[in-house]
Amino acid sequence: MTAVESVGEFRFECGESVPDLTLAYETYGEFDGDNAVLVCHALTGSQHVSSAPRSEDHDADAVGGSDAGKDADTGVQTAGQARAWWDDVVGPGKAIDTTEYYVVCVNVPGSCYGSSGPPSEGPDGEPWGTDFPPVTVGDWTRAQRRLLDRLGVGRLHAVVGGSVGGMNALDWAARYPDDVRRVAAVAAAARLDTQCLSLDAIARRAITTDPNWNGGDYYGADRPNPDDGLAQARRIGHVMYLSKASMGRKFGRRAAGRGAFGDAPSDPTARFFPYREVESYLDYNADSFTGRFDANSYLYLTRAMDEYDLAAGHGSDAEALAAFEGELLSLSFTGDWHFTVEQSRALAGAARDADVPTAHHVVESDHGHDAFLVEPESVGPPLRDFLADGVDGRAVRDEDEGEPVEEESRSPERAPVHASLFPG
Amino acid sequence: MTAVESVGEFRFECGESVPDLTLAYETYGEFDGDNAVLVCHALTGSQHVSSAPRSEDHDADAVGGSDAGKDADTGVQTAGQARAWWDDVVGPGKAIDTTEYYVVCVNVPGSCYGSSGPPSEGPDGEPWGTDFPPVTVGDWTRAQRRLLDRLGVGRLHAVVGGSVGGMNALDWAARYPDDVRRVAAVAAAARLDTQCLSLDAIARRAITTDPNWNGGDYYGADRPNPDDGLAQARRIGHVMYLSKASMGRKFGRRAAGRGAFGDAPSDPTARFFPYREVESYLDYNADSFTGRFDANSYLYLTRAMDEYDLAAGHGSDAEALAAFEGELLSLSFTGDWHFTVEQSRALAGAARDADVPTAHHVVESDHGHDAFLVEPESVGPPLRDFLADGVDGRAVRDEDEGEPVEEESRSPERAPVHASLFPG
Repeated sequence: MTAVESVGEFRFECGESVPDLTLAYETYGEFDGDNAVLVCHALTGSQHVSSAPRSEDHDADAVGGSDAGKDADTGVQTAGQARAWWDDVVGPGKAIDTTEYYVVCVNVPGSCYGSSGPPSEGPDGEPWGTDFPPVTVGDWTRAQRRLLDRLGVGRLHAVVGGSVGGMNALDWAARYPDDVRRVAAVAAAARLDTQCLSLDAIARRAITTDPNWNGGDYYGADRPNPDDGLAQARRIGHVMYLSKASMGRKFGRRAAGRGAFGDAPSDPTARFFPYREVESYLDYNADSFTGRFDANSYLYLTRAMDEYDLAAGHGSDAEALAAFEGELLSLSFTGDWHFTVEQSRALAGAARDADVPTAHHVVESDHGHDAFLVEPESVGPPLRDFLADGVDGRAVRDEDEGEPVEEESRSPERAPVHASLFPG
Repeated sequence: MTAVESVGEFRFECGESVPDLTLAYETYGEFDGDNAVLVCHALTGSQHVSSAPRSEDHDADAVGGSDAGKDADTGVQTAGQARAWWDDVVGPGKAIDTTEYYVVCVNVPGSCYGSSGPPSEGPDGEPWGTDFPPVTVGDWTRAQRRLLDRLGVGRLHAVVGGSVGGMNALDWAARYPDDVRRVAAVAAAARLDTQCLSLDAIARRAITTDPNWNGGDYYGADRPNPDDGLAQARRIGHVMYLSKASMGRKFGRRAAGRGAFGDAPSDPTARFFPYREVESYLDYNADSFTGRFDANSYLYLTRAMDEYDLAAGHGSDAEALAAFEGELLSLSFTGDWHFTVEQSRALAGAARDADVPTAHHVVESDHGHDAFLVEPESVGPPLRDFLADGVDGRAVRDEDEGEPVEEESRSPERAPVHASLFPG
């Protein structure tokens, strides 16, 4: 069950403020004073990280009593998030064991799953739209810090995040170096590279050139959403989340069969050519996505991701981590071209330069960026043992140890065709 | 000077016909009966491959006496093609030496530089639009064959092409195996992979969801072109043409300076964030491109590229090349993720299986797919020597020879920032 908490006036890094920041979050397990683990979601994720039983709601307003869809009273969207996004990793007996840890996951400001953001109600009773202050990853961290204060959590045992959630985790190490014992950045980096900045900019342009976007003012039942643009952004995203190898293996060049989702665009130039399986896959995911995500939020959150730079304000990544007293796990996947192994290696190197006990654990995988979601068998063991024993954890391998990278037996067929970042 | 030739009724592979196919082409050098080299242009290229003096016009109608822009009388667009696209490789004393070879380059059907295509005039005096028959790479080859017949060229000394032009060259080997002595496929492949199929589909969708596209019917001075959509397609293309490394080196994460081309989109969510150099680069190229290319042609030509499959109708790549009596050079670039080294290697392997004398020449480069255009010093020598002596040519290295790949000294600064596929 998602809870919401108002944490008062909040001044964003950009200098703009909201009078009362609302944060939607979920907690699992019981807090014993020393066992809190903050899990940071990826770009379009939500607070709904696990299907495990939630903790009591700590005097916050409980909303969204089921996962059945958007709650008309509170405006909290849970549609499409019915399936918890890291259910194979977080829960009782799972790698992040909710019988052992008190797990907190917070929807980031700027998103659309109950925390304040462009689609939420502003002071005038209308949706904020693009009047909502631009957000940064640092704002997410500061908001999480404030919520944790309300929950009575001082020092965190760990912060764990994947993708831009991993940047969020790194920001904790840099911003509140005394407040967290262990930081795990999964499929993440100290900053986005130029190629990914480009694709994000193209994705945003797809939204802002959709006439229905209307300068960000499209809320209200009588107005169409910029679904074409948001769908295009999502298609681009999915190409970034998969690898060349995994796309080839899953779809090849096959024409979509009868009954496949979607249809060729109304494009007479296509009359001699097949509608391919991979197009059906992209269209399926794009269609699902437009039903559960807000176009303005997509603009806000990709801006935050693009802007994030661990070194900003510090001079270097190592200097940013210099005050961090904890340990770092950087976990990367060989097939990930969104956040590469090389970027994780550079991050680990900077952390070592800052005398942070660090492991760079490389997983052989051709699943691309999606691997952190679809390979719990690769991600779980090192996370579990890092939480328990830090970089000396049994299943934590550091590539510098010179040991062969562990490749667990798994079937390449394991990942369902339509499983990608936050399916549904 | 571009010449145009009408080659009569033409039935396309899709089964549809045009009553009179027009082909725009350029020739350089003098034909001696045995020295003809057909150069095949890439997706958005033209017949204007070199600034070398053209041959006489072989009784064809000469049009476009200057490169100054679109010729209002003939409708031949030369805008943006003022700079010949392979001027460093084709010309007097260049690798494809026009004092030695008779070089022919033909604008492919479906394109927009004077050959019949969507923007050209149909039987009713109006632009064809999407009534123009869908085209395939095979149609390009068949049209080229017909033009060469008119020019009196029977057997070709060589066919050379880059990118989808390399597919065009391969199609010659499969379709007219007795008609060509040497085929060079540069930065090409036997077929596009799933990832690139996806990005092409997304690019087309950007055009077809632009309201100005209007089902392909946007011709006429009073109608707006689907420039937003075509620009998006081009931005996606440019990311495909560059490598992660070259993008990082050229642009990093820098904000665009004063006077940079372009401006942030009218996006209030951007108010706290920089407009980056790489965005300026993409916007500059996208803007140039919409001034010189037709959106429907972009749909047609990417469809042709996506559909191309050397093995189609043959069972395998090797069987497709089984009747080819000539030699094959497959030239690839390590930083190219559009057409990869692995794809070139597979092509070379298939050719060897078909007993075709073959060399797979790998160039170490981080320029990405663009390398075939911006690294004439890498491309020229093996092409020159392959034309002269086949796979035994001095500068032709086959990776199977076990020799180290030749890496010539060159400055990474050499490629100008705004040089990419067909700049301008």
